[in-house]
Amino acid sequence: MAPGGVKTKVLIVGGVAGGASCAARARRISEAAEIILFDKGGFVSFANCGLPYRVSDVIADDKSLILASPELFKNRFNIEVRIQSEVLSVDATRKFVRVRNLVTGNEYDESYDALVLAPGAAPLRPPIPGLDSPGVFALRTIPDSQYIRSWIAEHNVKTAIVVGGGFIGLEMTENFVHMGIKVVLIEGLKQVMAPLDAEMLPRVHERIQERGVELCLGDIVSRIEQQPDEGLVVETKGGKRFDAQIVILGIGVRPVTELAKSAGIELGARGGIRIDDRCRTSDPNIWAVGDACETKDIITGEFAVLPLAGPANRQGRIAADNIMGRSSSFRGVQATAICGLFDMTVACTGANEKTLQRLNMRYDKVHLSPGHHVGYLPGAKPMDLKVLYDPHDGKLLGAQCVGEEGVDKRIDIISTAIQKGGTVFDLEEAELCYAPQFGAAKDPCNMAGMIAANSIRGDAPLAHWNLDSYMNSFLLDVREPAEFERGHVEGAINISLTRLREAMESEIPAGQPILVYCAVGQRGYYATRALRLSGFNARNFSGGFRAYTNYKKAGLLAPAQ
Amino acid sequence: MAPGGVKTKVLIVGGVAGGASCAARARRISEAAEIILFDKGGFVSFANCGLPYRVSDVIADDKSLILASPELFKNRFNIEVRIQSEVLSVDATRKFVRVRNLVTGNEYDESYDALVLAPGAAPLRPPIPGLDSPGVFALRTIPDSQYIRSWIAEHNVKTAIVVGGGFIGLEMTENFVHMGIKVVLIEGLKQVMAPLDAEMLPRVHERIQERGVELCLGDIVSRIEQQPDEGLVVETKGGKRFDAQIVILGIGVRPVTELAKSAGIELGARGGIRIDDRCRTSDPNIWAVGDACETKDIITGEFAVLPLAGPANRQGRIAADNIMGRSSSFRGVQATAICGLFDMTVACTGANEKTLQRLNMRYDKVHLSPGHHVGYLPGAKPMDLKVLYDPHDGKLLGAQCVGEEGVDKRIDIISTAIQKGGTVFDLEEAELCYAPQFGAAKDPCNMAGMIAANSIRGDAPLAHWNLDSYMNSFLLDVREPAEFERGHVEGAINISLTRLREAMESEIPAGQPILVYCAVGQRGYYATRALRLSGFNARNFSGGFRAYTNYKKAGLLAPAQ
Repeated sequence: MAPGGVKTKVLIVGGVAGGASCAARARRISEAAEIILFDKGGFVSFANCGLPYRVSDVIADDKSLILASPELFKNRFNIEVRIQSEVLSVDATRKFVRVRNLVTGNEYDESYDALVLAPGAAPLRPPIPGLDSPGVFALRTIPDSQYIRSWIAEHNVKTAIVVGGGFIGLEMTENFVHMGIKVVLIEGLKQVMAPLDAEMLPRVHERIQERGVELCLGDIVSRIEQQPDEGLVVETKGGKRFDAQIVILGIGVRPVTELAKSAGIELGARGGIRIDDRCRTSDPNIWAVGDACETKDIITGEFAVLPLAGPANRQGRIAADNIMGRSSSFRGVQATAICGLFDMTVACTGANEKTLQRLNMRYDKVHLSPGHHVGYLPGAKPMDLKVLYDPHDGKLLGAQCVGEEGVDKRIDIISTAIQKGGTVFDLEEAELCYAPQFGAAKDPCNMAGMIAANSIRGDAPLAHWNLDSYMNSFLLDVREPAEFERGHVEGAINISLTRLREAMESEIPAGQPILVYCAVGQRGYYATRALRLSGFNARNFSGGFRAYTNYKKAGLLAPAQ
Repeated sequence: MAPGGVKTKVLIVGGVAGGASCAARARRISEAAEIILFDKGGFVSFANCGLPYRVSDVIADDKSLILASPELFKNRFNIEVRIQSEVLSVDATRKFVRVRNLVTGNEYDESYDALVLAPGAAPLRPPIPGLDSPGVFALRTIPDSQYIRSWIAEHNVKTAIVVGGGFIGLEMTENFVHMGIKVVLIEGLKQVMAPLDAEMLPRVHERIQERGVELCLGDIVSRIEQQPDEGLVVETKGGKRFDAQIVILGIGVRPVTELAKSAGIELGARGGIRIDDRCRTSDPNIWAVGDACETKDIITGEFAVLPLAGPANRQGRIAADNIMGRSSSFRGVQATAICGLFDMTVACTGANEKTLQRLNMRYDKVHLSPGHHVGYLPGAKPMDLKVLYDPHDGKLLGAQCVGEEGVDKRIDIISTAIQKGGTVFDLEEAELCYAPQFGAAKDPCNMAGMIAANSIRGDAPLAHWNLDSYMNSFLLDVREPAEFERGHVEGAINISLTRLREAMESEIPAGQPILVYCAVGQRGYYATRALRLSGFNARNFSGGFRAYTNYKKAGLLAPAQ
């Protein structure tokens, strides 16, 4: 029997997540297709998400990072992989590409029926004097990690500067600390992990500093200088000066679009390749997948460049489907992301508050800080969870979570709910795993849903900490006096929940908005209900004093008290 | 201002999860209501899920288990709690209950506008001779745990028999082992954790035995005898005889319905109180919540008695809402459950295969065994995941998972998808957290969705291990020869994936069904695609040789080879 499926010739440029997935999927749909995968590097299908852990030997060898070799592609999938082969240009009219063999220097043309661009993203390199100095590295490929490892070994590196507090920057910081290297982390924003809102990060900043890292926020590198001893000096715009033996750049990536430009295909406003929901570019014979593309955010409808492995893999499969005549479409991205560092986890899905504000989208939010499992079993770790939703219908818009345990689970639950158009009412009713080690009869996700639903229903409208939220209101702290004494919001009156009912008539002014808070929001909720049922116009500060502290540390409140 | 809300008198019988939630919620809706909570025990609102961990001192004191005292109910919620007060009977016509103060012996009547029955469930006590012997305990209340602790201390207990391999039985087994007590675990079924299907359990059975527990499955206790030295002898129907110093009964619970019967309200076929979706019983003034009730399973539509804390709490709130004139309804249960033991986790949601078979519901299934995170980072632990779905539209029907890490997360993700009517196609596209420590670019949930979707689309139809699934077929093992040598299914032919294409024409018979398997299903999938595209009628064994081993160990296959 002859092998079946569409007889077509598919060239794929770039052999990591999206490109490799596309190649393998194409073969699974057609045995008759000719499939060639080009990569200018020496490896395909490697796990670049593991590179920071390779630098520190947490991952013991390069082989572990290589998910499939060219031989395996040949043996398992009958796919021809040409490594160290750079595709130089595309002739979209005549449908061929120009390829250079980087080993021999030979150049040749290769024709295609369908071309898939999966060139990925490249580290951003801002025009900083000295950026090309020896000892300054980005980390995107296996050779990058090898150069870094060699430099560390040869120079007996004990001090490092990491520029950028995103995923790579944080993971490199952690791995350096793990290696006993002293780190200065410089980030241009006033927070690490830009996908989250500022008030979610103070505890992460504290943890980073507790582990001995010098954290330099809201400052950018202005100059790098090499010393005679091969050491490096980094100067910042803020006038700081740091010495180190190595500098890692982790300030983000840009989509690689040179080839797309040579093919004359359309780019989007964010500079990535514009693709439709079939992953097809403006040229009908050219597809594109992965980090080089702009993809539609399902919450905001905006196009964004979002370098994430999961969506890249999905796009690879969808491009292959459509090339082979199957109809399948990409539902867009919801920006689920996660980073683990120093025994903490930072994760998010959907839109953040900054984005919703920028787009002037309707939203409300809840803050809560439950334990990752029931408090009665030893070892419960608090998490800070923020959920954003549409206050009209409760539709979930996004969530952020920071903590030591169970963070990924809660974001994945909410991610799944968002995917299905879920609401805070769905979270309220979610039936999640409960045994003492794993959660609570009211899981943090249930609690988030309840708090939001109580607000939407008008039972316990929420207040939020911001510069003027508690002016002209009666600010009521319902914690016990001892808690109040240990710290409170300036101007707050302390009437504990336990004596609220008796004090209500004499100590709480009628006809004035009452803003209630407690430690994390629960007693404030009970107090708010009692007050509202007694005719007071009360609202409850979401997240209570803990949220206040987080907002204040993030610099989002007046530096009062 | 006078306190607002509905002026009604609510009596609640039973003060644990459902009853306590109902009381607190009722107060939050009405400050004007009179709310009295009765419990015949000495405690309300205690965490009975924590009791096994209290026995072993993992939870250090009783106080930790008490979530709210009568004083706190009074102070925070203005709710009157009457402990040690047994409600003896209900006069539903005249709307009052008869109460006995168990301390004084006094009896009195208390009238109500609305009555909520939350009496919970009681341990099953089958008619076994000697069941009342000193040293035989159930574990449902704080006093139960105190009796057990005292007995252990006084008798210097070193040997125990646990009867029943459900949640309580397994948790008690683990806690006994933690205390250095040697355990025999006797279970009537051929598996522990009845909510899961049999093939999911062999690795759990092995783990239990590895930790030194004598596991006696498929046998039941016929007789218990006390020895002169206060030791106990347990005899089984299978003719076994075990000595021990303590016996714990964990063979399940029955809904407590004596009071419901005295009120003349309707019970369901399973013996629980029948309630509607407002948690109202057949008497318009009587509501019921929690373990005493039958609730509707949202997958099967069947009514079931399911003692779970989460649904009990939800019902408590819903009953309170409706009593207070709010319309809210209970969506039913989906039977999400979890148990941790010996560093393993066993969890499930939705319907299992046994139930789907019994109800003759249409379903298909996938088995897979991915790591809890990427394999390239050290420490990945395999999990066995089973997902059940409707093969016509892909609708998710249930999931089961067993492993060491990340099990609760996957079940919660699928639980959330089920709640929203999700399909295997949704799982395929789910955008979940991925960094090396937390999952994979293709999370186990994504993989489950892909395998099922590939089967539904006809790309790679699945085969399943059962007694006759591989008769009259060409059974093809596509693993490498060395793997084949270490163990394979009797009658299988070994042609590894790497040489499949060259061997296809000469070694594989045309016109005969080809059943393919590999280690866990992935290479089998690639082989199945290649075969089908070349005209063969191939199917892939879901879960591969690992699933075969699990089925065989569970006794579901002929004891071949």
